[in-house]
Amino acid sequence: MKEKGILIVLSGPSGVGKGTVRKALFSEEELSLQYSISATTRKPREGEVHGVDYLFKERVEFEEMIKNDQLLEWAEYVGNYYGTPVEYVQKTLDEGKDVFLEIEVQGAMQVKKAFPEGLFIFLAPPSLSELRNRIVTRGTESEDLIHNRLTAAKEEIEMMDSYDYVVENDKVEHACDKIKAIVTAEHCKRSRVAPRYKKLLEVE
Amino acid sequence: MKEKGILIVLSGPSGVGKGTVRKALFSEEELSLQYSISATTRKPREGEVHGVDYLFKERVEFEEMIKNDQLLEWAEYVGNYYGTPVEYVQKTLDEGKDVFLEIEVQGAMQVKKAFPEGLFIFLAPPSLSELRNRIVTRGTESEDLIHNRLTAAKEEIEMMDSYDYVVENDKVEHACDKIKAIVTAEHCKRSRVAPRYKKLLEVE
Repeated sequence: MKEKGILIVLSGPSGVGKGTVRKALFSEEELSLQYSISATTRKPREGEVHGVDYLFKERVEFEEMIKNDQLLEWAEYVGNYYGTPVEYVQKTLDEGKDVFLEIEVQGAMQVKKAFPEGLFIFLAPPSLSELRNRIVTRGTESEDLIHNRLTAAKEEIEMMDSYDYVVENDKVEHACDKIKAIVTAEHCKRSRVAPRYKKLLEVE
Repeated sequence: MKEKGILIVLSGPSGVGKGTVRKALFSEEELSLQYSISATTRKPREGEVHGVDYLFKERVEFEEMIKNDQLLEWAEYVGNYYGTPVEYVQKTLDEGKDVFLEIEVQGAMQVKKAFPEGLFIFLAPPSLSELRNRIVTRGTESEDLIHNRLTAAKEEIEMMDSYDYVVENDKVEHACDKIKAIVTAEHCKRSRVAPRYKKLLEVE
């Protein structure tokens, strides 16, 4: 029995460095993750290859995919559609490979709804834990600055609640190491491993 | 706010190599695990140090500890008591350090009852997954041998159900890497991390 792959969703507030962490992760050769390819209606840029960088679609095609629930998530941005085709994800998971999706928080919440069995990792800004020090030494910063930072922090912390793991992006290498550990651990989860062993005995 | 440590319990069928994996783990310098020291009524052997190898106790002291629920688990073996004092474990966890316990399955189940928030890792014999191949090529092995192996395997697989993770001990280094990944991942769990962030904001 082949083990199904895991859908790994990395998200977090904008500016936290999701793209940088994703690129660092995929620059490592031993990593056996598949990067999920997005579909888009925007025109290919110089050098972009259909099926590698994006799946380039016509608007009418994309709207058809929305209608037929063929996207794990989608959004319209500056007049163009962007989305994650469920077919590629499903096919890759069925082959026993993990699929990695780096995505904005709104998209991640759509994926969570469509695919709750995914592994949801929240990348947290290090400024969040620096906040404590800032507050402690508040005499040195204006009340307004602290207030704005606190409001943003509250929103960021509320976002976390829908995720399985929180990884602080204090250093890209640290964040990558933690994400790799989380994926390794996930493959050792009893709920994932035991059924395979049980299946084994059904042969008898 | 200091994060509490995690109680990590490594167990598995006898002969699976729990002790070897534990020794390999603790030979690594970067590892910040505390090994839980057992209490026993057996006499110290040459070179054994009280408080390092064991907490050496008189029978009456040990029985007092049992009576007062001061042991996470205990057993009597060849006329001597062995057990895990809850005080050392609790104190170490409160200091924010992880405690590692390598223990027989019966003891692990006692710990699970007393300390359900622990992290329970089952070390599985690689022979379990080799079993499939054996069955497939069954012509080459006697029915009896296969039957005995299957009965044992069924018991081992049933044991897994009380654990959070299953790590196959195919190679000691692999098992160690997986255990370290599981501990790293556990420290990134949202249920563990988010309350710290939330606590941070209560300052305001």
